[in-house]
Amino acid sequence: MIMYSRELTVNWGESDPFGLVYFPLMLAWFNDTEHELLRAIGFPTNRMIAENRSAFVMGDVHFKFIGPAAYGDRVRTVIQLSKMTRSTLHWDCRAEHSSSGDLITMGRAIRIHAQIQDDGNIKSIPIPDDIRDALSKPGALVDMDSGHPQSD
Amino acid sequence: MIMYSRELTVNWGESDPFGLVYFPLMLAWFNDTEHELLRAIGFPTNRMIAENRSAFVMGDVHFKFIGPAAYGDRVRTVIQLSKMTRSTLHWDCRAEHSSSGDLITMGRAIRIHAQIQDDGNIKSIPIPDDIRDALSKPGALVDMDSGHPQSD
Amino acid sequence: MIMYSRELTVNWGESDPFGLVYFPLMLAWFNDTEHELLRAIGFPTNRMIAENRSAFVMGDVHFKFIGPAAYGDRVRTVIQLSKMTRSTLHWDCRAEHSSSGDLITMGRAIRIHAQIQDDGNIKSIPIPDDIRDALSKPGALVDMDSGHPQSD
Amino acid sequence: MIMYSRELTVNWGESDPFGLVYFPLMLAWFNDTEHELLRAIGFPTNRMIAENRSAFVMGDVHFKFIGPAAYGDRVRTVIQLSKMTRSTLHWDCRAEHSSSGDLITMGRAIRIHAQIQDDGNIKSIPIPDDIRDALSKPGALVDMDSGHPQSD
Repeated sequence: MIMYSRELTVNWGESDPFGLVYFPLMLAWFNDTEHELLRAIGFPTNRMIAENRSAFVMGDVHFKFIGPAAYGDRVRTVIQLSKMTRSTLHWDCRAEHSSSGDLITMGRAIRIHAQIQDDGNIKSIPIPDDIRDALSKPGALVDMDSGHPQSD
Repeated sequence: MIMYSRELTVNWGESDPFGLVYFPLMLAWFNDTEHELLRAIGFPTNRMIAENRSAFVMGDVHFKFIGPAAYGDRVRTVIQLSKMTRSTLHWDCRAEHSSSGDLITMGRAIRIHAQIQDDGNIKSIPIPDDIRDALSKPGALVDMDSGHPQSD
Repeated sequence: MIMYSRELTVNWGESDPFGLVYFPLMLAWFNDTEHELLRAIGFPTNRMIAENRSAFVMGDVHFKFIGPAAYGDRVRTVIQLSKMTRSTLHWDCRAEHSSSGDLITMGRAIRIHAQIQDDGNIKSIPIPDDIRDALSKPGALVDMDSGHPQSD
Repeated sequence: MIMYSRELTVNWGESDPFGLVYFPLMLAWFNDTEHELLRAIGFPTNRMIAENRSAFVMGDVHFKFIGPAAYGDRVRTVIQLSKMTRSTLHWDCRAEHSSSGDLITMGRAIRIHAQIQDDGNIKSIPIPDDIRDALSKPGALVDMDSGHPQSD
C-alpha cells in the first residue's frame, strides 16, 4: 500500500527548555505528512470537509521517542499504510535525521474516516472507494522539492 | 472601563531554543486572558458563536517585548479596556513577573466584533448593548484563584 | 502510588478546522499536568534542570482518542502512577468532561529520568531517592483551585 | 536591502474554532520566513547560537489582520528589510493568498541582535559586518521550491 515521505526543517517555535523538540509537536509532523499525502493523491482534506463534512480523524497513537532533534535540523518523515479496514487507516510512521538516518521517533497511528454531525459529535463512516483505490496502490511517493536545501 | 488580571505558569511547550518564551505565544496569553474576562462577566465566546456566529476577532496588535520569561515562571497578565467604539475594543495589555513585577511585554490590541458569514468571510457588526454595558463598568476583576501557588 | 488531577478550560488556539481540539495538544495537557504534580510535591522541573540538568523526558506514548472536546469546555485530566522502575515512570492518563464525566482520551505515557549531556544528547539516569519517595506515597492530590469556575 | 518570499500551506493545527488561522500563528509564519532567509544567505540561526550565543530576538511587532486564511490555503509571505541600525533589523512583512493576492496580514517587526548571558538575560550587541553586508544587498530572493504545488 501507499508510502509517503517528506522533509522538514525544525522550526524555532518547536523547542522545549532543553532546546529539543517538544514531543507533541513531533506527532504534528506526521499529521501534516499525512495531509500532504492526501493532497498529493487528489483528496485534500479541505475538499473532503467541504463536500462531505468528513475527514480522517485520529483514533489511536503509539509512538516511541528515540533520539533528540533540535532547531534547524533537517528531518525526514516517512509514513507507510500497513492496513486499511472499512473505515480505518493504520499508518507506520518514523522520523529520522535526513543527513545521518538516525531515528528520532517511530510509531503507529490509526485514523478513522469520520463525519462531523450537526450536534458536534463525529461518527465513523466507510472510506469511499476512490480514496480506497488511491491508497491501495503500491509504491512510494517522495516530496522531492521539500528536500532541496541539501547544503543546510 | 473594565480591567482584568490573571496569573499563569509558563508551560514546558512555550520555549524557544534559548529556553525563553517564543514571542507569538505571549500574544496567546492575552487572547486567553480576554476570553476569560468575557467568561467572567457572563459573555463566553462559545455562547456568542452558538447564538450569533460572532466573536471578538483580532484586528491589530502592537507589542514590545521587554524582558525574558522562561519555563516555570509565574506571570501576571493585565488587560485594561482603554477605548470602545461601535464595533471595536481597544485593550492596553501587559505581562509581568508575579514576584518582581518586572515587565515582560506590553502593548495594545484592537478587537473587532465580527460575525462569520456563510462564505467563510467575517464582517464587523455592532457590539450588543448588554456586552457594552458590562465592559463599561469601572473597576478591576482579578482571578484570585489562578494566583494561588504563591510558594512557587 | 501517586495520583493527580486538575481542571483546564480548552483555549481558543487549541482547535482544528472542525472546531475540535487538535489531538497533539491533548498530549500537552498531560505533560502540563505531570509538571504541575512535580511542582506540587516539591520537585519543580526548572529546579531539576538548574541543579542537575535533568528532567523526566517522554519515552513512549499510547493514547486512544475517544470523544470530542471543543473550545470553552471544562476538562478534567487525571494521571496515576502505575509503575516506577530505576529510571522510568509509567503514567495512566485520562481526560474527561468535568460536567458529564464523558471520556475524551485515555492512555499511557512512559517518562525517562534523563540528563542532558554537553553534546546535546540525553542519557537516562536513576530517579533520586527523594523524588522516588514522594511519588510512592498513596493517595490523590487534586488541584482544587483550578476547578473553581463551576458555573461555566 | 534584502527581500525574501516563500510559500506555505496552512496546516490543520493552525485553526481557531471559526476554522480560520489563529492570529499568533501568523506571526510565527514571519518568524520562520526570516529564519529561512538567514539560512539562505549563509547565517543560519543555529550556527549563530553555537558560535556566538546570539540570535535576532523579537523586539517589537505591529500587525494588522486584514483577511481570513483557512486550513489548506496556499499563502505567500514576503519580508523586506526597510532599515538596519547598529543592532536592529526593521522588517516590512505581509502575507497574501498565493492564488488571488488577497492580503491576509501586514505589519512591521523589529529584531534585536542579542546575546544570551550566563544569567539567562539577553543583551543587544552590534550586528557583525558580514551579516550586515549580506542583508544590505538589493534584490529579492524567492524560495521557488516551496511554491511548487501549483495545482492545489
